[in-house]
Amino acid sequence: MKHTDYDFGLVGLGVMGRNFILNVADNNFKAFGYDLDQEKVDALKTEGGNLERVNAATDIKTFVNALATPRKIMLLVPAGKIVDAVIENLLPFLAKDDIIIDGGNSFFTDTDRREAYLQEKGIHFFGSGVSGGAKGARKGPSIMPGGNKEAYAHVKPIFEAVSAKYNGEPCVAYLGPKSAGNYVKMVHNGIEYGLMQLTSEIYDILRKAGGLTNDELHTVFDTWNKGRLQSFLVEITAEIFNQKDDKSDGRLVDKILDKAKQKGTGKWTSQNAMDLGIPVPSIDIAVSMREISSLKEERVEADGLYGRPEVAPIAKEDLIAMAEEALYFAFITTYAQGLHQLADASKEYKYELDLSVIAKIWRAGCIIRAGLLADISSAYVENKDLKNLLLAPSFVPKVQKAVPSSRKLVAYAATSGIPMPGLSNSLTYFDAYTSSKLPLNLIQAQRDHFGSHTYERTDVEGIFHTEWGA
Amino acid sequence: MKHTDYDFGLVGLGVMGRNFILNVADNNFKAFGYDLDQEKVDALKTEGGNLERVNAATDIKTFVNALATPRKIMLLVPAGKIVDAVIENLLPFLAKDDIIIDGGNSFFTDTDRREAYLQEKGIHFFGSGVSGGAKGARKGPSIMPGGNKEAYAHVKPIFEAVSAKYNGEPCVAYLGPKSAGNYVKMVHNGIEYGLMQLTSEIYDILRKAGGLTNDELHTVFDTWNKGRLQSFLVEITAEIFNQKDDKSDGRLVDKILDKAKQKGTGKWTSQNAMDLGIPVPSIDIAVSMREISSLKEERVEADGLYGRPEVAPIAKEDLIAMAEEALYFAFITTYAQGLHQLADASKEYKYELDLSVIAKIWRAGCIIRAGLLADISSAYVENKDLKNLLLAPSFVPKVQKAVPSSRKLVAYAATSGIPMPGLSNSLTYFDAYTSSKLPLNLIQAQRDHFGSHTYERTDVEGIFHTEWGA
Repeated sequence: MKHTDYDFGLVGLGVMGRNFILNVADNNFKAFGYDLDQEKVDALKTEGGNLERVNAATDIKTFVNALATPRKIMLLVPAGKIVDAVIENLLPFLAKDDIIIDGGNSFFTDTDRREAYLQEKGIHFFGSGVSGGAKGARKGPSIMPGGNKEAYAHVKPIFEAVSAKYNGEPCVAYLGPKSAGNYVKMVHNGIEYGLMQLTSEIYDILRKAGGLTNDELHTVFDTWNKGRLQSFLVEITAEIFNQKDDKSDGRLVDKILDKAKQKGTGKWTSQNAMDLGIPVPSIDIAVSMREISSLKEERVEADGLYGRPEVAPIAKEDLIAMAEEALYFAFITTYAQGLHQLADASKEYKYELDLSVIAKIWRAGCIIRAGLLADISSAYVENKDLKNLLLAPSFVPKVQKAVPSSRKLVAYAATSGIPMPGLSNSLTYFDAYTSSKLPLNLIQAQRDHFGSHTYERTDVEGIFHTEWGA
Repeated sequence: MKHTDYDFGLVGLGVMGRNFILNVADNNFKAFGYDLDQEKVDALKTEGGNLERVNAATDIKTFVNALATPRKIMLLVPAGKIVDAVIENLLPFLAKDDIIIDGGNSFFTDTDRREAYLQEKGIHFFGSGVSGGAKGARKGPSIMPGGNKEAYAHVKPIFEAVSAKYNGEPCVAYLGPKSAGNYVKMVHNGIEYGLMQLTSEIYDILRKAGGLTNDELHTVFDTWNKGRLQSFLVEITAEIFNQKDDKSDGRLVDKILDKAKQKGTGKWTSQNAMDLGIPVPSIDIAVSMREISSLKEERVEADGLYGRPEVAPIAKEDLIAMAEEALYFAFITTYAQGLHQLADASKEYKYELDLSVIAKIWRAGCIIRAGLLADISSAYVENKDLKNLLLAPSFVPKVQKAVPSSRKLVAYAATSGIPMPGLSNSLTYFDAYTSSKLPLNLIQAQRDHFGSHTYERTDVEGIFHTEWGA
């Protein structure tokens, strides 16, 4: 057995890493894993079935020397200092033009720093988001690589083989230089936060206003998943309502505590959108809602103090139809915001992103995959400089038709005290974005009044200041 | 004339600096200004009327030597690198225990860095937000100092004299160590963003749904300013509607372009709230709306594509009454969010903030001054560990009474396509915060389904994971 001809190396044999390496091996590449944990190494060797196909070691030198040059080494380790530590451990054994791929959710400026550092040493570095969870890693994830374009040629055959396929097209593409891949994955996750929040609100109103049982909720989401809302999140939501609880007679979803955790990528998306000056309120509010959810004890206290208005029930059929339209509308506006952020980030950070390609590689494998993405991709093929999805001619009639239900549902929620902040923000974002005239002339007047911050006029060019009240 | 006995030094003789120094002199302290611009120096000397009262120089050595020790030198220069540059220029001439006060909107971590740096050199550094605009600086601002508590004794008499007064109490207090003062000022500005956005939305609905003229808007805001909405922002809003345009026959407000600018403190508030995990959606959305406002060309295009729903008019009297209640409700929830952020930041950054004191020094002088702040201060006097203003017994009936109008107005706005995102977010924040049960159990189920992120249960302690669909 030759020891220097493995096609692909992988550091970190957790669930994601192990699954990814088995996926690589399934596609007829020889893969070598590395982890400090002997048990994980042994388990992988056993699972791989054939050491010429899948091998692994706890010794870094053995690992690196087993790989054919230029080496392609992917890290699937937690984002943060551990990525730097692994890089330092690898460096002494690497040769010029070897390739390190960070498959984690690293913050994009960390990726830029690492890429510049490794470039000096003749090593190529790819920040490459991987979405699809454990199952995606095993069966085909969506992969979002960014880095040196020429070096990507060495990675391309492997990534295209292991990635998810949509109508035969691989859900991976070279996205751009430097941290382009990590940035796109970050915004992917921001959109994911938004879509999850929206789904949860629709669930809430269906049970509170329509009195739907978990069985009915299952059927509704399952039906929706066969229509224009077809998407991974709607699909698993249907599954979730069906899941029996092994500790009680009921359904598991009813026993899960309503405190949602977060790992930071949604927050980063919102924070960076603010740095860019791009509005993503449907993502911001999803971050806020996870925060509010964690204040469970305060919520219980406040509920006791205020109580809730009575909810006027709505006929199930009407409610379900309205909810489907509203969710479709809010999904579109949430994608629109994330893509708007990507378009702007592309200019700001010189990523030269092609949004039609990004929408394409999101069509399968990743958490936000949805039938809608094929339409979105087409809209950007038609006009690659599209400023906002809401301006795409193919989307105008879709959105226009879905708005009235969104209005009804938001109005109903406001009246009934059912918090639907994601849906509200999607609607107010739409209403503000489509308003040729907003009342922010008053804000400019206020700013000039108290801070002499000046203003522009609608009729004359220039910058003006007024001594108000004079 | 002795040249070493000036009580107070001020660097930066722009509008704020000049006004602040004249304010200091009015209060019988001898003040010395410094600016590189000879014209500004000369103008100040003339305006001061008496060189023993107000003097100034373009030479830094003359400036520093004119001050009595320990020197108290305030910087009113733009935040950023210029603050560091001024500090470096001053350092060679300073003596141990001299005090530098940064009166600008510096980012709080910059203040921490500067304070640590200057502490090594035996110099005290205060990050000290000043609010009230040019008029406030001249007549009495609200001042928010943080830094070394002992050293504050030297600054206190001057700040207490020059600050705004509320029932005779000075609107300044030592707030806490390090960047406490800058942090409080940052959140002050975040709240300011929120209140301004809300005011603009109320203006919008009054003109669009009620058809109010500028004269009527003036009267409405002027009347409100005599009631429980009494506040600086409502007061100047009334004034703004009255302001004649000198370039046309109409009112100036109608000629101001609806693109609102920002200088970053609102954004910082939102971004840092996300780092802390504290929800401030009424501030977030105010930042987003300034961003959307700047997309004027896209808005005009989108408006043309979508049009707007017809607005069903509401009887003026009803609308005005509803709007007053809704604005009052939204003001309260916005203050609640900002104060919640301060409470958490106090723990995180060890500021040991006293929120009742902060509310007190905001009662006069600053941009967010409002009658409401006296009530807010009392609520925190009653319970200094109050987790959220919405939980204060004195606020529950106030809020409860104002909620129904907010519901009606938000529902109406959603139906009519009038964007009221600030009001909506205030309402959904309230509805979520007062919900003992939110639908985020579904989000935890989704996270566990696709990412094995685990969940907690409502009935059994522990961390759980399920093989969904198995």
